[in-house]
Parts: sequence; C-alpha cells; structure tokens
Amino acid sequence: MDKISLEDKFSLFEEQWSPRIVAESNGQLVKLAKGSGELVWHSHENEDELFLVIKGKLTLKLRDREIALEPGEMFVVPKGVEHCPLAEPDTHFMMIEPASTQHTGTSKTDATRELEEQPWI
Amino acid sequence: MDKISLEDKFSLFEEQWSPRIVAESNGQLVKLAKGSGELVWHSHENEDELFLVIKGKLTLKLRDREIALEPGEMFVVPKGVEHCPLAEPDTHFMMIEPASTQHTGTSKTDATRELEEQPWI
Repeated sequence: MDKISLEDKFSLFEEQWSPRIVAESNGQLVKLAKGSGELVWHSHENEDELFLVIKGKLTLKLRDREIALEPGEMFVVPKGVEHCPLAEPDTHFMMIEPASTQHTGTSKTDATRELEEQPWI
Repeated sequence: MDKISLEDKFSLFEEQWSPRIVAESNGQLVKLAKGSGELVWHSHENEDELFLVIKGKLTLKLRDREIALEPGEMFVVPKGVEHCPLAEPDTHFMMIEPASTQHTGTSKTDATRELEEQPWI
C-alpha cells in the first residue's frame, strides 16, 4: 500500500453522500465522503461510526442535540443512536466504520449507497 | 460524548512519543501523539495501525522503503510489518488501533508507554 493523500482522494469524485473507501484497518473501512444538505435519519444497530471533518461543516443531528463539526473536529456516533447528517455545501469528511455498516441503516432511500456502491479509490 | 477538537486536545500535552487517547470506536482507540526524532523499530503482531499526520512530517521507516507523511496524509502499517517512526520536531499525528496494541510491540525501551500510561484526555 502507498500513502494516502486525503486531498488527492477528494479530487477524484464529486458525488454527494456517496462514500469512497480509501483504506482498511483491523476490519474497519476508512471512507471519504462529500456532503451537502441533509441525508436521512438512521442508526447502525451494531456499529459505532467515527466522523472527522476535513472541510466545511457537518452537523450530526441527534434526537436530543446537534453536534456541529468543523475542520479538525471529530465525533463518534455510538451504535444504536439515531442521527441525521446535515452538511454545508461542499463539506468533506472522513468516516471510519466496520465493513458491515449499512450506509443509512434500515432507512433506505434514493440516497442510500450499499457497500457494493462504495468504490475503492 | 462531546465533539473532539484535535487542536484543543493537542494543546493539552507536550510529551513526545506519548500517546493520549481521545475516543473509542468499535473497540479501537483513537490516539493523538506528538513526535520528534526516532522512536524504535517494532511491529504489532495482530494489529494494523493507522497513522494520519496533522502537523509536521512523520516518516514511517519500513525495512524496504520509507513512507513520508505530511499533514492530510495517512498510512496503515499492516500487522506484523516492522516499522520505525521518525518525526520532524513538533510533529502531531493521530493513530487508530485496537486497545490490545502494544506501543512499541515487543521492543520495550525507556520510550515505551504501556496502555496504562496512555491517559484519556
């Protein structure tokens, strides 16, 4: 494996809310995604989900509060906790989560990207 | 849990090669460390180790090549692969690894920090 430049990887795609996989470590996948607007309320029954914002602003709406993340800020959404990501235009962020994680949990929408639709770049 | 600002967390310690824990996700620990100079050759038999550089320059010396990481660049050292971290002064980086990971593998030195010596901040 070579080193991974986040900037280089983000330059390879434009689609919003469509994670790309850049690395695997201990059975977890490191994913990069761009977001704009709101995704959908969902939870992951068995997986914690780590978010680290690289550019822009990503708000993780929880049922009882909102976590607003700017570049260099991270948050772990614990397994089972409902959340709805909301991003300013052209927000870039990293996620680290087990390969078993469903993109939008059981909340399937047109925006849902199954793991097979999350290419390695 | 609240959100985690990497900059705020890095402001809380100065010791070199002494990881601090800032989060747990799926049994893996997110650690922040500062480095300067060379640590020691070691490997982790059962754990991959993810490095992401935030500031400065971290070179991961491998037996057959060197991976030089600057801010925004990452690398996963696969389990069992010998490596020796070498950092420019005041380099800041993140590591993500299972809680079982020994700091310097079986290469214990004065610089080794056991998990009990890696405080949560």
